[in-house]
Amino acid sequence: MIIGLDIMGGDFAPEAALKGVLLSLEQKGNIVFNLIGNIEYIQEKFPEYYHKLKDHQNIIFTHAESVIEMGESPTKAYMHKPDSSIAIGYALLKTSEIDVFISAGNTGAMMVGAYYTIKAIEGIIRPTITSVVPKEDNTFGILLDVGINPDCRQDVLMQFGWLGSLFMDVVHQVKNPKVGLLNIGSEKEKGNLITQAAYSLMESSKRINFIGNVEGYDLLTDKADVVVCDGFTGNVVLKALEGVYLKMKERNISDEYFDTFNYENYGGTPILGINKPAIIGHGVSSPKAFSNMFNMAESVVENNLIGEIKKLLVE
Amino acid sequence: MIIGLDIMGGDFAPEAALKGVLLSLEQKGNIVFNLIGNIEYIQEKFPEYYHKLKDHQNIIFTHAESVIEMGESPTKAYMHKPDSSIAIGYALLKTSEIDVFISAGNTGAMMVGAYYTIKAIEGIIRPTITSVVPKEDNTFGILLDVGINPDCRQDVLMQFGWLGSLFMDVVHQVKNPKVGLLNIGSEKEKGNLITQAAYSLMESSKRINFIGNVEGYDLLTDKADVVVCDGFTGNVVLKALEGVYLKMKERNISDEYFDTFNYENYGGTPILGINKPAIIGHGVSSPKAFSNMFNMAESVVENNLIGEIKKLLVE
Repeated sequence: MIIGLDIMGGDFAPEAALKGVLLSLEQKGNIVFNLIGNIEYIQEKFPEYYHKLKDHQNIIFTHAESVIEMGESPTKAYMHKPDSSIAIGYALLKTSEIDVFISAGNTGAMMVGAYYTIKAIEGIIRPTITSVVPKEDNTFGILLDVGINPDCRQDVLMQFGWLGSLFMDVVHQVKNPKVGLLNIGSEKEKGNLITQAAYSLMESSKRINFIGNVEGYDLLTDKADVVVCDGFTGNVVLKALEGVYLKMKERNISDEYFDTFNYENYGGTPILGINKPAIIGHGVSSPKAFSNMFNMAESVVENNLIGEIKKLLVE
Repeated sequence: MIIGLDIMGGDFAPEAALKGVLLSLEQKGNIVFNLIGNIEYIQEKFPEYYHKLKDHQNIIFTHAESVIEMGESPTKAYMHKPDSSIAIGYALLKTSEIDVFISAGNTGAMMVGAYYTIKAIEGIIRPTITSVVPKEDNTFGILLDVGINPDCRQDVLMQFGWLGSLFMDVVHQVKNPKVGLLNIGSEKEKGNLITQAAYSLMESSKRINFIGNVEGYDLLTDKADVVVCDGFTGNVVLKALEGVYLKMKERNISDEYFDTFNYENYGGTPILGINKPAIIGHGVSSPKAFSNMFNMAESVVENNLIGEIKKLLVE
């Protein structure tokens, strides 16, 4: 299995990515890493990492002359920088030279590449991304969408339920995951126009174990494994929880459960609903986060998440 | 000044309301409380409170035979129970027998009464309610709407900005309050279709000090005094913060700042944008919360919030 990794993406690039590879390399003898980035820059600025990695049998370097910076306009940058690490990564993924592509770089550009180069699976209206919501007992749920799709129709929300449910089942081995619709009341008729309509669709869908509406205070409980919402609401609520975490750190509050909200340590999210596996990391990804993303990538590929999604759609 | 108080509303009714009155009665010699509820029930079940209050010169009792329960359908209940404490409260408010009406009862029924009996101020598209978001240094900001208006057009969001700004200025003496639009990015072009349109409207409105977009993690900072959003997003994010508070209590985390998230202690929210002052309390309102609501009621009436809103609309 070959993991393609954008080593130029993320706030701590390339060091965090390279350290992550070094952390995982010895345990993952079956995995080849194709490291995509500016080789001359790595040689010059990070000679130590370069020399440790260059002759390793499980390492390939692919040169990418440019980088899509965090602040750049995603579509414009992706189209105008075919020599960027993200564009090259997607090109390698398209031609199956890598089995999965990972980047903690510009999220928008990762989505543009997903849409234009890899494309949505037939029948999927809007690909989506998820975020982990930690629960007690070291378990977690997922929330989706978290920002890519700020305006969602009801059928899109229902599909998020399918995609999230399959992801938890196939990749995280949570069987028959409980799917909830994020809403402003527990009763069916509560909500805005879209969630009211989505409730009816989700309730009658045989592809998910729909448990009904969940509210903001249910996010930290184990009421649902998969919480579905539009990307606007998901992004706001996720960042509010991040804000709580940051404030707790500022105030020197340490707690075993709330410490798990440190997003630096999480692996990323697969882009759900496209034809090949791509994983987006948080900008602040640490070496440990990269290492977790490699585990996720392995699980996504080995358990054939993409194939399972395609199968679900024709069932 | 006469405060009309629904003593039957709230999870701890009538005790919390009656205790709140007793807490405030001696400090507020200028205020008469018109206590609206089932007098026979109070006499029988809470004789101690009844006897303490009944002959006090600043207490009036108004009998209300029925109560709109928390789970009842608001519109139906309000229409079919003209003898309920909420319907009688609004009737007294309409005829100016009371200067302000307070209830911690069925929020939906409070809104129905506001729309049907008191009515929106001419020019206000959708009345709204707010919630306090505690900041450090014992200050706070407000978030609006928090659930009454799950679907909002852009002009409605702009008006929320006007109403919230005036409320902070007139009632809480925060001069020229910073108004932010809750969104998923800091740049103007970020957001869903409605927030993109609202940004332009708010930016060009001379009635507010618009500081642009704020994100989820800005809620706990002092970036904005007034954060505007649709009632769906506001309700979800507010309940998520309540969920954090509850989880912290469960885990025995005590912290001076996070302890201020105990909504039991807050006064309620005025219904902004209607022709007379009405205040909705949180269902779990404690005696202290009721006492805080009396302070808010006093400030709303004495500083003529309703008059200031009407003035703003013709300026």
